[in-house]
Amino acid sequence: MSEMRSASRSACNSKGTMIVVSNRLPFILKRNEKTGELERKASAGGLVTAVAPVVIRGKGLWVGWPGIHLEDPNEKIPESDPNDNTPTAGLLSSKIVPIHAEPALFDSYYNGCCNGTFWPLFHSMPDRATFNADHWRAYVKCNEEFAKKTINALRLLQENKENKNTSPPIVWVHDYQLMLAANWIRQTAEEEDLKCKLAFFLHIPFPPWDIFRLLPWSDEVLQGILGCDMVGFHITDYCLNFIDCCQRNLGCRVDRKNLLVELGGRTICIRPLPIGVPFDRFVSLAEKAKPVLSTNQKIILGVDRLDYTKGLVHRLKAFERLLEKHPEHIEKIVLLQISVPSRTDVKEYQDLKEELDQLVGRINGRFTTPNWSPIRYIYGCVGQEELAAFYRDSSVALVTPLRDGMNLVAKEFVACQIKKPPGVLILSPFAGAGEMMHEALICNPYELDDAAEVIHRALIMPEDERIVRMNHLRRREQLNDVDSWMKSFLKAMDSLEEEADDIGATSMQPVTIDDFDEYLSKYIGYTQKLALLLDYDGTLAPIAPHPDLATLPLETKHTLQRLSNMSDVYIAIVSGRNVENVKNMVGIEGITYAGNHGLEILHPDGSKFVHPMPMELQDNVVKLLKALQEQVCRDGAWVENKGALLTFHFRETPIAKRAALADKARELITASGFTPAPAHCAIEARPPVQWNKGRASIYILRTAFGLDWSERIRVIYAGDDVTDEDAMQALKGMAATFRIASDTITKTSAERRLSSTDSVLAMLKWIERHFSRRKPRANSLTYKNARKARDTLQMQMSYQLPLKTSPRPSPPMSPDKSSSGSESS
Amino acid sequence: MSEMRSASRSACNSKGTMIVVSNRLPFILKRNEKTGELERKASAGGLVTAVAPVVIRGKGLWVGWPGIHLEDPNEKIPESDPNDNTPTAGLLSSKIVPIHAEPALFDSYYNGCCNGTFWPLFHSMPDRATFNADHWRAYVKCNEEFAKKTINALRLLQENKENKNTSPPIVWVHDYQLMLAANWIRQTAEEEDLKCKLAFFLHIPFPPWDIFRLLPWSDEVLQGILGCDMVGFHITDYCLNFIDCCQRNLGCRVDRKNLLVELGGRTICIRPLPIGVPFDRFVSLAEKAKPVLSTNQKIILGVDRLDYTKGLVHRLKAFERLLEKHPEHIEKIVLLQISVPSRTDVKEYQDLKEELDQLVGRINGRFTTPNWSPIRYIYGCVGQEELAAFYRDSSVALVTPLRDGMNLVAKEFVACQIKKPPGVLILSPFAGAGEMMHEALICNPYELDDAAEVIHRALIMPEDERIVRMNHLRRREQLNDVDSWMKSFLKAMDSLEEEADDIGATSMQPVTIDDFDEYLSKYIGYTQKLALLLDYDGTLAPIAPHPDLATLPLETKHTLQRLSNMSDVYIAIVSGRNVENVKNMVGIEGITYAGNHGLEILHPDGSKFVHPMPMELQDNVVKLLKALQEQVCRDGAWVENKGALLTFHFRETPIAKRAALADKARELITASGFTPAPAHCAIEARPPVQWNKGRASIYILRTAFGLDWSERIRVIYAGDDVTDEDAMQALKGMAATFRIASDTITKTSAERRLSSTDSVLAMLKWIERHFSRRKPRANSLTYKNARKARDTLQMQMSYQLPLKTSPRPSPPMSPDKSSSGSESS
Repeated sequence: MSEMRSASRSACNSKGTMIVVSNRLPFILKRNEKTGELERKASAGGLVTAVAPVVIRGKGLWVGWPGIHLEDPNEKIPESDPNDNTPTAGLLSSKIVPIHAEPALFDSYYNGCCNGTFWPLFHSMPDRATFNADHWRAYVKCNEEFAKKTINALRLLQENKENKNTSPPIVWVHDYQLMLAANWIRQTAEEEDLKCKLAFFLHIPFPPWDIFRLLPWSDEVLQGILGCDMVGFHITDYCLNFIDCCQRNLGCRVDRKNLLVELGGRTICIRPLPIGVPFDRFVSLAEKAKPVLSTNQKIILGVDRLDYTKGLVHRLKAFERLLEKHPEHIEKIVLLQISVPSRTDVKEYQDLKEELDQLVGRINGRFTTPNWSPIRYIYGCVGQEELAAFYRDSSVALVTPLRDGMNLVAKEFVACQIKKPPGVLILSPFAGAGEMMHEALICNPYELDDAAEVIHRALIMPEDERIVRMNHLRRREQLNDVDSWMKSFLKAMDSLEEEADDIGATSMQPVTIDDFDEYLSKYIGYTQKLALLLDYDGTLAPIAPHPDLATLPLETKHTLQRLSNMSDVYIAIVSGRNVENVKNMVGIEGITYAGNHGLEILHPDGSKFVHPMPMELQDNVVKLLKALQEQVCRDGAWVENKGALLTFHFRETPIAKRAALADKARELITASGFTPAPAHCAIEARPPVQWNKGRASIYILRTAFGLDWSERIRVIYAGDDVTDEDAMQALKGMAATFRIASDTITKTSAERRLSSTDSVLAMLKWIERHFSRRKPRANSLTYKNARKARDTLQMQMSYQLPLKTSPRPSPPMSPDKSSSGSESS
Repeated sequence: MSEMRSASRSACNSKGTMIVVSNRLPFILKRNEKTGELERKASAGGLVTAVAPVVIRGKGLWVGWPGIHLEDPNEKIPESDPNDNTPTAGLLSSKIVPIHAEPALFDSYYNGCCNGTFWPLFHSMPDRATFNADHWRAYVKCNEEFAKKTINALRLLQENKENKNTSPPIVWVHDYQLMLAANWIRQTAEEEDLKCKLAFFLHIPFPPWDIFRLLPWSDEVLQGILGCDMVGFHITDYCLNFIDCCQRNLGCRVDRKNLLVELGGRTICIRPLPIGVPFDRFVSLAEKAKPVLSTNQKIILGVDRLDYTKGLVHRLKAFERLLEKHPEHIEKIVLLQISVPSRTDVKEYQDLKEELDQLVGRINGRFTTPNWSPIRYIYGCVGQEELAAFYRDSSVALVTPLRDGMNLVAKEFVACQIKKPPGVLILSPFAGAGEMMHEALICNPYELDDAAEVIHRALIMPEDERIVRMNHLRRREQLNDVDSWMKSFLKAMDSLEEEADDIGATSMQPVTIDDFDEYLSKYIGYTQKLALLLDYDGTLAPIAPHPDLATLPLETKHTLQRLSNMSDVYIAIVSGRNVENVKNMVGIEGITYAGNHGLEILHPDGSKFVHPMPMELQDNVVKLLKALQEQVCRDGAWVENKGALLTFHFRETPIAKRAALADKARELITASGFTPAPAHCAIEARPPVQWNKGRASIYILRTAFGLDWSERIRVIYAGDDVTDEDAMQALKGMAATFRIASDTITKTSAERRLSSTDSVLAMLKWIERHFSRRKPRANSLTYKNARKARDTLQMQMSYQLPLKTSPRPSPPMSPDKSSSGSESS
């Protein structure tokens, strides 16, 4: 990954190549009903206006759905109409990468997951969100499809000789429909050495953790987004919400000051990039547009997609309240509400439309006089020029969404306010635009009395105040128009590798000892003992091509050695290796070793616990070993016999041949009654006993500290493997847990992530420093005490737990009843 | 305030006196239909069980509503029934302070605001919340009533000679119904020198800022709660949400590590205090309870108040999904759902009941066989003993709220699980209990497939795993029962004044220079110039009994002097004093002075701007001065003639006489066509011109830096007066704003609060340090440049703003058109 980014060091990308990945292409395809030919229907959106020229200039590509399901996926995309003078006209069909998806799947992805789950949830309206596993699977599939097409696009660029540009292309993924695509793009690009820089921009709000966590697939979404190098949101609040979720859901290290998140050893920059509108285009539209409104009344304007986030019901009721409380406005004002039809096939939107129809009727019925109706309600689309005339000639614009990522109506309105004296903008604080457009009248749409008063204030505002406010608003939007947004984005991408003083850091400092102050000092405190449970491979020792080469770094060994001599620190190494092997690799006396994921445990006093292998499996082990050796030990693959389990290794097998061998091995393992479990380039055959690193960890702690260990000691668990997840789950809430992971896609139950064995060493040093500073305590832990604790386990049961015991008392934490653990010294 | 708390230093309060203030008394009053007498009906809630003995032991009092509207508010509260053996039996009627409220007002407060606004909002369900100003006013009024009664109770305690206890009583305000009461209690207690320590505990969740900010009265609620010395929530998440809101809404200084908030110079401790249940009582109930359920099926138990936060619809659907996906459970299991009627007079709750009735019918209709129905749905209340039997004899408890402050059903269930082998608890992560009860199966109630799988997993869980999990759950709840919660609360109150190592800091360090790194270093950076706009009285100079005595501290003066010599720092003093007077008080040359709230501005080059007094007012000023002097200048009150305005001072008038004098003065001022405006123990008579510190500030900035000042410079504004709020509003988003306030109740638009003039000095020193470190720049600002900027103002207008200008161009930021500002040098 570091190569991917360092390749672009010092290269300015503003003239580089860009691949845009968005749910929709920048135009819609329609089939001409007469000719049967496909035709492009251009989009006039501000985003397209700003982005398309950059894509065209850099000979880039655009990946997206064409707005139509084609029966023949290879049907050619038409070139643009010769008369087309929109920004996308120059986008050759060879630069378009259309997405084809099966209609039912696409519907489940788009209407089900995107608009049924993410839209309401990200707008902090959890009541409206539905969570459906089928829709989620469709979302995953469609994102994979977008990723696949993007990889094709990257290959195309790399092959294409006309791109002599040395800087890697920017892949820019857009919006909530595509939150998973980036990680697959990154993975394949790395495998195929396709250079690129990955960016994501979210056009809707990002919710706070308390809302986001309701999503059953919240980790996947965060990790998908973090596949990028840079992630943009409209405003800092959304950035901070996202960073908070990364820290709390994924256990990432974050830097709120510089807006950085670390995952798998990479730093991801989070940036506020408030989008703007094509200001000058709206000015000239407003200059050219003919007057449409012929009325003596002041126009209060509302323009919205008909969506529940827009607060239309609240707005109409506030307007009613205004007429009630300030009857002086009757016959003097008109509310012109334009509602653009949206998602009309969804019941919730049909219901909303009905509610609005009824409300408009009721309010008009209540206040209409022979020559005046208070509300003019247009349900339909309005052309750009007519819209500009509305914007220009209105006295007040009501932009009062309940929640809105940014809201461009507010910005378009001020752009078109070229007449003197100008009108007044009323803006909800819950729109992203409300964060910047301070001179608007800010109005909480939920409180109707207050909203009515704000509209009244807008209607009677003196001219000079209106001028001051509107001038400031217009200046800001002119400066921060959509082209300036595009430039800010490119600048942010350029600066990813720089450490310039005025833009702040773009990569996080390596983990240091001090980082663990934040993670651990509150948890560990100054009175408790500490039990330190550590995996070996990938946690203490870096992963090596062969297990024998994975030696413990000297500094780590010495630190562990010193820790093992501290009276308040107890150490256990919990490994997938067999117990003698892991003890040899670590080479420290007087600590606990657990091998074979805890099936064997060697206590410091030399006593040993062995989880019994059910008798009926003894034969199977031998048979399975033979079968594996005969049938899948080729191309560098081999079997390790660990005693209580077997491990099939294929790390030296060529990548292309691994899948087939692994499949076959899994089959053999399953056939023998064992469970295949994934490990690092390996598959383990585990005996069918309910035992894992989690239960082993609890067994170790109980043995050393007694049944009430969780109230008396602090525990740290660190591991890098999926098998460590059992321990992290079992110890949830009773330990500080760390997962070592150098990639973006690992899922974990651990509280925190660390990116390498170096970070684990930093943690060990923190522990050493922390315990050296503590005052010595009288009742320090000795091995004798530990042994005693184990011996009195049975006894404690009877007097410490005032619970009813069964006739035949058995320790509650023992291994499976079917196989009561044997201990031999 | 510091006296209030320091009085308790070193006193252990666990045997002290407590006044509990809660919406409901710990029992309900009912009128005996035969005798017409009032009778107590005891409550069996865990909270009452734990708290009542502490109140009784310390001879404390309980303030609350008795559950009945009494026609005669003086009707005596009866003593408890002699046979009553509940914990409240010992609560003498002399220790009860009943609240009386007009029924319609109480309904608006309770059903309208508490349950219509706060309940859904605090459960992060904003769609369900209604925001109604009338309900809010009822909430304010009822909170005032509770505060008044609490003050009476405090007086009673102080007078009562039997309380020889030297430690001040604890006033403990409970829950979302009483979030405003604390501040009024604090104020009156201070005025009357009634010693007490104030605490608040919220029994429901505290939402994240993005949700909380929807409340139109969010500042008032936060400030109300911060009237206490200690604020408790169930879990740390709620504490952090609250602290975040204090920082972002109120601009408080906060300490997330030690969970502290600073407001008005006081530190408020925020503490997680997870409530427990009377564990042992439930154990003995379960031991005694006769079996109720005679069935061969495994019982899956749900017990909830019928409320939309409980996720009952989701739960029933998940159960349906289970039967669908795992038909092996058909005829083997029963869902026993007990729904306790709640708020049955509210339509939303009636609708929910209908939906549930229908859903139960449909699912039963779908799966019922001749001898089995899948759901047994009890709509009604269940006795404690019967409930304990249900808890004991169920195989699975489904506690799956969509959001829940804590949820005690989960805890009661594990307490009653005394049978062997035990059952399984399924718990939502969105309940506070989900944060601690890790051994439960955690289930996201929103995802039905997943929820069905979790129930399946619970049903087939092996016995040994059930034993392990249940033992851990029970141990924790036994240790952390409701008595332990009560003790933790008392310990937290005791430790308010201590700085013990293991409980963390309980008061924030005074503001230091370094604090401003966080506030300002990102905003100011290293390239821009800084304009520093400062109020004088209460901001630079401490408030004094007479304006003449409010001198500038020498250290502040010297720091300002040095800043004024820095080329990148521009200083303006913006005061309510007349301009010559404020210049004399500060005594620094070469900076800008604005007097009379900006009606007069003295530039560094000696030129002066005077906002013209409309001619027609000249006579009125003289008349008003005379009227004030003749009619209200007595008892130490006097009038200051500031030129463009008059100030009526009454700070030397005895408190009791102030209100009448102020009323009369306001009347005279209004009658003369002037606007009375509040100031420190004074009322100003302002001329009817639209000019204030906000417009003056913008005028100063524009004059010094040109029309595009907001793009070129950074601005800091600091002030302590309501008149400074005009500037904070006008500069919103374009300046860093600080309000100096030493109390809890001040409302402000400023971004940050500072508690004293000392903090302002710290800020000035930060600026000095920051600018000393910056590299010198070539184009430094000189007064000449500033003057030039002003002179070219008009010119810039025409070419910098490509906006259409009106036929008669005028500067957009000029004062009222009615009075175009005059400048004379």
